[in-house]
Amino acid sequence: MHIEVINTGTELLLGNTINTHGAWFGRELFKLGLRIARQTTVPDGAAIRESIEEAIGRSDAIIVTGGLGPTSDDLTREITAEVLGLELITDEAALRSLEAFFAHRNKPMAQANLKQALVPVGADVLPNPNGTAPGVYVPPRLNDQANCAIFLLPGPPRELYPMFHNEVAPRLKAMAAIDQAHGSRELKFTGIGESDFHQGIDAQLATIPDLEFGYCAHIGEVDLRLIGPPEALASGSAIALEKFGTFLISDDGSSLEATVVRVLKERGMTLATAESCTGGLIANRITNVPGSSAVFGHGFVTYANGAKSSLLNVSSDDLATHGAVSEVVAKQMAVGALQASGADIAVAVTGIAGPDGGTPEKPVGTAWIGLASSNHDAIAFKVFHPRNRRDFKLAVSQAALEAVRRRVLGLG
Amino acid sequence: MHIEVINTGTELLLGNTINTHGAWFGRELFKLGLRIARQTTVPDGAAIRESIEEAIGRSDAIIVTGGLGPTSDDLTREITAEVLGLELITDEAALRSLEAFFAHRNKPMAQANLKQALVPVGADVLPNPNGTAPGVYVPPRLNDQANCAIFLLPGPPRELYPMFHNEVAPRLKAMAAIDQAHGSRELKFTGIGESDFHQGIDAQLATIPDLEFGYCAHIGEVDLRLIGPPEALASGSAIALEKFGTFLISDDGSSLEATVVRVLKERGMTLATAESCTGGLIANRITNVPGSSAVFGHGFVTYANGAKSSLLNVSSDDLATHGAVSEVVAKQMAVGALQASGADIAVAVTGIAGPDGGTPEKPVGTAWIGLASSNHDAIAFKVFHPRNRRDFKLAVSQAALEAVRRRVLGLG
Repeated sequence: MHIEVINTGTELLLGNTINTHGAWFGRELFKLGLRIARQTTVPDGAAIRESIEEAIGRSDAIIVTGGLGPTSDDLTREITAEVLGLELITDEAALRSLEAFFAHRNKPMAQANLKQALVPVGADVLPNPNGTAPGVYVPPRLNDQANCAIFLLPGPPRELYPMFHNEVAPRLKAMAAIDQAHGSRELKFTGIGESDFHQGIDAQLATIPDLEFGYCAHIGEVDLRLIGPPEALASGSAIALEKFGTFLISDDGSSLEATVVRVLKERGMTLATAESCTGGLIANRITNVPGSSAVFGHGFVTYANGAKSSLLNVSSDDLATHGAVSEVVAKQMAVGALQASGADIAVAVTGIAGPDGGTPEKPVGTAWIGLASSNHDAIAFKVFHPRNRRDFKLAVSQAALEAVRRRVLGLG
Repeated sequence: MHIEVINTGTELLLGNTINTHGAWFGRELFKLGLRIARQTTVPDGAAIRESIEEAIGRSDAIIVTGGLGPTSDDLTREITAEVLGLELITDEAALRSLEAFFAHRNKPMAQANLKQALVPVGADVLPNPNGTAPGVYVPPRLNDQANCAIFLLPGPPRELYPMFHNEVAPRLKAMAAIDQAHGSRELKFTGIGESDFHQGIDAQLATIPDLEFGYCAHIGEVDLRLIGPPEALASGSAIALEKFGTFLISDDGSSLEATVVRVLKERGMTLATAESCTGGLIANRITNVPGSSAVFGHGFVTYANGAKSSLLNVSSDDLATHGAVSEVVAKQMAVGALQASGADIAVAVTGIAGPDGGTPEKPVGTAWIGLASSNHDAIAFKVFHPRNRRDFKLAVSQAALEAVRRRVLGLG
């Protein structure tokens, strides 16, 4: 089923507003086993006509957002009717609902709002309990040019999202009955690169009937996405896991931090963090996970050497002899955090984020990651991510969280 | 000048990734006095061909992002060459640069990466110091079908943004023969909303000749963007500052955290943080600023009550009586951080991020911000941001950083 999304709004193209509709529709349609074939953003006005005309010819369904308001640049309704050669008439129920909306708020209804009750002849009005703009559904049969359903939806998420769930999703589901057997799966990996997958499993994945697959590489992470019928998903997952299973973060789209919180929770363990170069990013990522307070209570951001000594009991002598970015200091930070927090496991990072502070022996991008837990000797290992400051922090935090995951799961 | 942006990537349509490129390009082109006429998102693969073919017919320039990686679904380079009827050849300089990228990281280059050095005959290679995928610029003369420039750019922002600034913007500027006398200025404000600006200064700004202006609202921040000749920028800035000067974060696009680091540095002061509900985000934002180690040495993430007591000396009795989210605890956290760190000023936050943990008296979204410094009594104030977890953290961190800025600058 070929579905296109057209987002209208000059503000989306001037950079004032990030278009989050695309991603939201993607997720929601995906849950129905459907996909967006193309998403287009056009400014208010005549460009809407062109994009609707083009999409009609190749689509089974078109979802248009925005341009249903009362002002002169809200033209989606008018343009759609023109393109389809349908007259616009006032829908009595939509008009009553508009009047009720204003009455409920003790506000007079402006003359301009009257046009919001207009719909193409034969189209359905989609009620909007959360705003003034009712949606419009033009069934395929009304369209002479192609067998294409058209949904006109309001732009604001608080109006759009409920209308999609209540009015659009059920209609799409009915239309797409055949496609429902297809599903999707996202496997997240860390510690290996996209080209490892390409060389390692692409050829095998390509032999699986009806399987679509693709990769999305982030810093310190590669996501493998599989789309197809259940048996194709199972076969694809099996191939990926056989080759790269120990690098798997999650097979349900969960982030590394969410996975770390989950595995700690499952084992009743708590984590403490001691961060120098990542400056609080690891703690921040962990506390982005709802429920993380069950496993995370203490975080130290010891950016200064003095903080490493006073808060984490790192030896001043070792700091002077080996430098803050060293194996011995990373270990002592982890041990210090473990003791000061009473946590079951502690992870520490110390490194050189740059742009300044690098030396030939310890260039910008160098970091040591220390790990301590009640039942293991402390260890530390070095990573090297010569990137800009933020990406360095992200890459190091990723390596640190992965080290925690592996320790908790006993992956060594 | 008709410019279209084509974003490729199945992940953008599956909802895994929000497409922030559209808004970013909008802002950057706006600074050059240019607009996006249409933005299209297509999945990896053959749909790229269709969208490029369509766009060529109506555009002066097309910017395509994504699909330049080493894997089998990275086809932008190949498809573009096909559409234009140009042969792909290996660019020696691009190949050397690829080899150097891997050598610098002590990693072997995979066979798959070789195709990243391919470019259509006659096209320019756009160097990518931040990743493996070089960009491609196909000048208008190479295109038989229309007089259209084509830029192929990598998807990851850390690679895309510098390449746009270094390689794309100058070429677009030359193409558009942009009046060099026009400049832009961005003034960032916090503590007031976009509608305050509309009501307060829009009418005045509209009277300034040749001035274009617009707003961009973020969480806890409104950016005013001015475009025009120098005298128009000066007049526009003066009007905004006269009305809202005490809310100004910066007039050079600097972030709030960069401003906080700068004002602390100018006064030779140091800051400590004590974070409960923001979970390290404030420290993370501060340490994103290069040179922040001069003003920031100690951060505490005291997510657990026990951590508040043991690390910050918060009274267990007060925690029991008033709860962790209270004026008295916020003050004690700030005082404790000040004493444990020896910093000149300390900021503390404690609140309820949700989704659980709210009560009728302290609903999700409530936070107390405490401030302590060597020469003032500790204070605390309440904020309320009933948002999702991440936006709540961001809003509270913004209020905390702003409180530090005002305290350091003596703005009360």
